[in-house]
Amino acid sequence: MYIHQVAAYLPAHVITNKHFTHLNGLSHEWIIERTGIRERRKAAKGENTNTMAIDATERVLAAAPQFPATDVDLIVGATYTPHDTIYTLAHAVQRAIGVPDIPVVSISSACSSLLNAIEIVEGYFAMGKARRALVVVSEHNTAYNNEHDTVAGHLWGDGAAALLISKDRLAPTDLRMVDLITAGAGGVGKADVAVTLKPVEKGIVMPFGKDVFLNACQYMANVTRKILERNQLAVTDLDWLIPHQANLRITRNVLQALDLPEERAVSNIERLGNTGCAGAAIALADQLDQIKPGERVVITVFGGGYSYGAMLLER
Amino acid sequence: MYIHQVAAYLPAHVITNKHFTHLNGLSHEWIIERTGIRERRKAAKGENTNTMAIDATERVLAAAPQFPATDVDLIVGATYTPHDTIYTLAHAVQRAIGVPDIPVVSISSACSSLLNAIEIVEGYFAMGKARRALVVVSEHNTAYNNEHDTVAGHLWGDGAAALLISKDRLAPTDLRMVDLITAGAGGVGKADVAVTLKPVEKGIVMPFGKDVFLNACQYMANVTRKILERNQLAVTDLDWLIPHQANLRITRNVLQALDLPEERAVSNIERLGNTGCAGAAIALADQLDQIKPGERVVITVFGGGYSYGAMLLER
Repeated sequence: MYIHQVAAYLPAHVITNKHFTHLNGLSHEWIIERTGIRERRKAAKGENTNTMAIDATERVLAAAPQFPATDVDLIVGATYTPHDTIYTLAHAVQRAIGVPDIPVVSISSACSSLLNAIEIVEGYFAMGKARRALVVVSEHNTAYNNEHDTVAGHLWGDGAAALLISKDRLAPTDLRMVDLITAGAGGVGKADVAVTLKPVEKGIVMPFGKDVFLNACQYMANVTRKILERNQLAVTDLDWLIPHQANLRITRNVLQALDLPEERAVSNIERLGNTGCAGAAIALADQLDQIKPGERVVITVFGGGYSYGAMLLER
Repeated sequence: MYIHQVAAYLPAHVITNKHFTHLNGLSHEWIIERTGIRERRKAAKGENTNTMAIDATERVLAAAPQFPATDVDLIVGATYTPHDTIYTLAHAVQRAIGVPDIPVVSISSACSSLLNAIEIVEGYFAMGKARRALVVVSEHNTAYNNEHDTVAGHLWGDGAAALLISKDRLAPTDLRMVDLITAGAGGVGKADVAVTLKPVEKGIVMPFGKDVFLNACQYMANVTRKILERNQLAVTDLDWLIPHQANLRITRNVLQALDLPEERAVSNIERLGNTGCAGAAIALADQLDQIKPGERVVITVFGGGYSYGAMLLER
């Protein structure tokens, strides 16, 4: 299967660290030192997970004349910050593009959902029940975030991305999906309490950030090694690493564990914060034109709850 | 693929129609006439989507000595009433059964998620990435329901079910999955507004129940006909119909459209209300021992948002 096109949607409104200095007394330097984040986006009034998903979808379709909306035969949406758990982002996207009677589902395995969504597509392709899928990842973190939370309130940003995935190669520039691993790690460490979003009780909280940090570093490095090894590749064969965009210190830690130079990593944390399951897809959209023929990319993710994964792509 | 075992978990606390007579002035007779519902269950304090999912999982595993927890290599959870969108019900179940490093994901296409979850399993089996799946459907409707809502407050109940699904037949009593159709209908009618659960704004509301009713009747009857026809079967070849348990009037309408006698339908609405995506699975758990060798079952669902599906099983 092939990733034919990727596009992102980001809300216009920028929230700088000054906002949190004013609100919570956290200095710009302190936030940068701990997270790498300089600014993040915030959805406007009237924007939400569903509208951002539709915006990203419109952009990806506009960039893909070979993949018209009418060809879409499967939609998988992903979010842990739902606008509506019944009229989900995937259903909103279906309504927007107007393709009836195709499988449509929304998923969550938190920040790692991008790879779960793509693996579900892989399954539909394997069954012969779809050939042209639209994957949409969208997070409205600010709808569930408490800005006054001095522990994690400054981490989150909003954004969305959409990917067009085809069973067959449509263009020479398509990224071939060589391999994909996903897994839950719900039994590990403080997975049940470290970072949670209980809509009825409260929004996103991260009372055990250290447990998340340590596991994110370890799992993303290990699963990257695993996917390379089982494809007879070494870390030196890897041209680009796109980790989940949670925190620049996590990214640097993963790079160090893999002995990869910093310029091989794709990062948007500095200007977008943690955009959840959309982060790695937004980074792929940004990087797409820089990936040269023959180059290899690993997208590796780690999510609260916990879960992890890695996908190996080749142009 | 085969459904090896199914079990349900229902909270102990029963809410009768009297509760809504007292609260909203709705009489027992009026509620029965409009919905068929006599009573529904309500999760106790401390119970939620995740705990009920674990309870159902423990029951299904206890009933399946041939399918030990250690064999589970895929978990798909489903709910539109999440306790936690990060530490999802599927992750909670993974933690409870203690199987690491297997794909784990939670999904929502509202009341029709059961079939989406099973279709995702079908995809993992087709890829060869799993052979023994656990599907868990769990709804904590009362966490998101406004009991004072005279339009829909009396409809909802809590409950969960778990299914053990195997690529290969494990026992002569296993139900063979003959065929499965799922589809979104997000573009149809008032799918975007008819029934919604926007966690940040409010709970479950159903301002356009008539649109839901009409589409539920039409889609469940049509997709049942479709799955029978494409398997060269007539309605008379069908022994049991398990429709989404939304409303007894919808069930009767679907039976009439299909020209099926009422005794062919499996119903738990009277005593459980609308238990969302868990409803049809709870009904299958209840009916399991009554399905004789050679008999055929269709489970058909319709969900807000909208979405629909049908699954043909044969013992």
